[in-house]
Amino acid sequence: MKKILISGFEPFGGSAINPTERLINDIKNESFADAEIRTVLLPVHYDECAELLLKEVRTFEPDAVIACGVAGGRTAVTPERIAINTKDVPPESVIADNRGARPQDEPIDPEGPDGLFATLPIRAMVNRMKEAGIPAAVSNTAGTYICNNTMYAVLNEIRKRQLPILAGFVHFPASTEMALEKPGLPTLSHDTMLRALKVIVRTTIDELTE
Amino acid sequence: MKKILISGFEPFGGSAINPTERLINDIKNESFADAEIRTVLLPVHYDECAELLLKEVRTFEPDAVIACGVAGGRTAVTPERIAINTKDVPPESVIADNRGARPQDEPIDPEGPDGLFATLPIRAMVNRMKEAGIPAAVSNTAGTYICNNTMYAVLNEIRKRQLPILAGFVHFPASTEMALEKPGLPTLSHDTMLRALKVIVRTTIDELTE
Amino acid sequence: MKKILISGFEPFGGSAINPTERLINDIKNESFADAEIRTVLLPVHYDECAELLLKEVRTFEPDAVIACGVAGGRTAVTPERIAINTKDVPPESVIADNRGARPQDEPIDPEGPDGLFATLPIRAMVNRMKEAGIPAAVSNTAGTYICNNTMYAVLNEIRKRQLPILAGFVHFPASTEMALEKPGLPTLSHDTMLRALKVIVRTTIDELTE
Amino acid sequence: MKKILISGFEPFGGSAINPTERLINDIKNESFADAEIRTVLLPVHYDECAELLLKEVRTFEPDAVIACGVAGGRTAVTPERIAINTKDVPPESVIADNRGARPQDEPIDPEGPDGLFATLPIRAMVNRMKEAGIPAAVSNTAGTYICNNTMYAVLNEIRKRQLPILAGFVHFPASTEMALEKPGLPTLSHDTMLRALKVIVRTTIDELTE
Repeated sequence: MKKILISGFEPFGGSAINPTERLINDIKNESFADAEIRTVLLPVHYDECAELLLKEVRTFEPDAVIACGVAGGRTAVTPERIAINTKDVPPESVIADNRGARPQDEPIDPEGPDGLFATLPIRAMVNRMKEAGIPAAVSNTAGTYICNNTMYAVLNEIRKRQLPILAGFVHFPASTEMALEKPGLPTLSHDTMLRALKVIVRTTIDELTE
Repeated sequence: MKKILISGFEPFGGSAINPTERLINDIKNESFADAEIRTVLLPVHYDECAELLLKEVRTFEPDAVIACGVAGGRTAVTPERIAINTKDVPPESVIADNRGARPQDEPIDPEGPDGLFATLPIRAMVNRMKEAGIPAAVSNTAGTYICNNTMYAVLNEIRKRQLPILAGFVHFPASTEMALEKPGLPTLSHDTMLRALKVIVRTTIDELTE
Repeated sequence: MKKILISGFEPFGGSAINPTERLINDIKNESFADAEIRTVLLPVHYDECAELLLKEVRTFEPDAVIACGVAGGRTAVTPERIAINTKDVPPESVIADNRGARPQDEPIDPEGPDGLFATLPIRAMVNRMKEAGIPAAVSNTAGTYICNNTMYAVLNEIRKRQLPILAGFVHFPASTEMALEKPGLPTLSHDTMLRALKVIVRTTIDELTE
Repeated sequence: MKKILISGFEPFGGSAINPTERLINDIKNESFADAEIRTVLLPVHYDECAELLLKEVRTFEPDAVIACGVAGGRTAVTPERIAINTKDVPPESVIADNRGARPQDEPIDPEGPDGLFATLPIRAMVNRMKEAGIPAAVSNTAGTYICNNTMYAVLNEIRKRQLPILAGFVHFPASTEMALEKPGLPTLSHDTMLRALKVIVRTTIDELTE
């Protein structure tokens, strides 16, 4: 029996919705052969996001961590290739974290490597999502905001403690109802994104049980 | 009993899919109180598209015509405000019609007015789609391709024959599976677009029966 | 000697810059064989914009009117094909006019036609701009804001009074310095746009003197 | 006297133009106090691009390497924050390298770190470009194509040989004339981009001489 930890985020940036909150609520009700799923909702705050996820890693001892977040403007489900050792809210961005923090060009871990690759099977995830008719692509940047911070922190912890855990981050587009808040935003429906998350989980289980 | 004629298009421009083909197939199976629905699939050809639709107008004698087409790149369901008296495939466009025609800056009707407003209740449609959680906006251009041609032809015929028929055109975004053909394309799911079309039909029936 | 009236707009929508203001200042200093140029800066206000332009039409008695405005987000210089009989600031737009007016789906002239084509040589303008290495395309919508209002008003006045005046509207992209205000905005440089306006004026003079 | 090595690329992907070729030709004719400039034009080929640049590094022994490339679709001049250890032409991309190579998810250096930060003063470059009225932003991905390959190779070589050389990569938008090849592409003028490159060089010299 493999254990999969899946995280989502609370809403941020003035939006009332974060589609990953609903996704983790719904994925809990799915059953996967040979796997136990645990989910956790993370706060949009530069330090606590990672702390809470790492606490779950320690207590649940998962075989894989799939952290999920929203990237408004994307059109496809995008597993991230790399997390980078940077916290930065660029001057041109209107979005601070949910406590107003706006770090600029700061390292997440002053002793950490510049970048850390996801260890989840991201190419297989993308291929299988496409086979299922779901728009998907590997992304080469998770940004420098909370999502990247969470991905870097969990990969860095696994690296430092040499844990046998696959980990990574998947960015989802805005959900269809979010275009009501922000006209013109590309979206995918919740149903499509839930199907995507199921493919992502199954691909991860297959990787673990091969 | 009001009669509503709904048209969609065959695929074009190298795509194997036209979401409006599936939409008109599915809307036929819906029942609307006080209304009879007829659907027609139009060819993507500058002359025949309108001829076939006008033939249906003559035989079915509808109270309203809702012509539907796809506008790749849009993110919302967009009832069109106006059709213009122009056939034009601009030099920078790669898309001819399905027989290779590429008219340039030609009038549809040399005697016709420059523009003709939709007579469907487009603002009410948009408001009610939004209330239903569907991304929607009034569009101010149907382009100069087959969709505009169809909209202009039906409005012009109604004008010339002074028929008591509401008419207009609704552009739908690409459907989610079309992003597999063209990565990066914004999409809406078929389910969301079918819900949109039902709202559009009901808004039209309400306008007719007020 | 042909007379050409060229209008631009004051800044609006929170921007400190309107590139057409600088364009009309600079075009005044250019000399064109066989033509006299007059320029006028219009206020961004639904009624006054057209009133001031029409006053100049009456006093200057031009052979052609080239109204210019900015369309943030466009990448090319775009002569407009048609003006429509609508004033509308859509609910999703953040931009009222400079006095806060937000008309919704109102006619400009309740007796006027739905649409009026530009009478300037828009296709020739586009072809000659491209030959000069300038990104250019015919646009099929001038929107429903002040720019469309101005274009409709001048074409409608010419139509009603049956004046022998060519008229139309050209939308310019944001200028390069405007991207500093709004990161991510596509832009063209002032130099490129001034070259474009010179081609537009010369194409118009050629059309008048053919 | 500081020595600055600046590279550009030959055209690729079906375009007849690479704006960085013209930029390096023009920057050669500029004189900078306290600095000697050398330029090199690189082939768009996964292995040779880096080999040629590294050869210049060995012979010229520069104090800083500023590699330049074009990123069609961007609207601003974007110094890159990080290079990643990946060669990947994604299935959805139409662009192979100029010899047809399409590596998929391969490491550049199987022994190399996942990511390597630029050591050029990228934030100062961006701030000073903005002060000069030039659209600029730090980018968090150089992609996985030749540009990233070049940036990674030079940073990795400097790291392995522990050389006292600042290095990094700057992506420029398409130049204005490229929109003629590909309508709708956002662009900056050559003049604006040459001004940007001068600011980039001066910021680098200042960093070296502080």
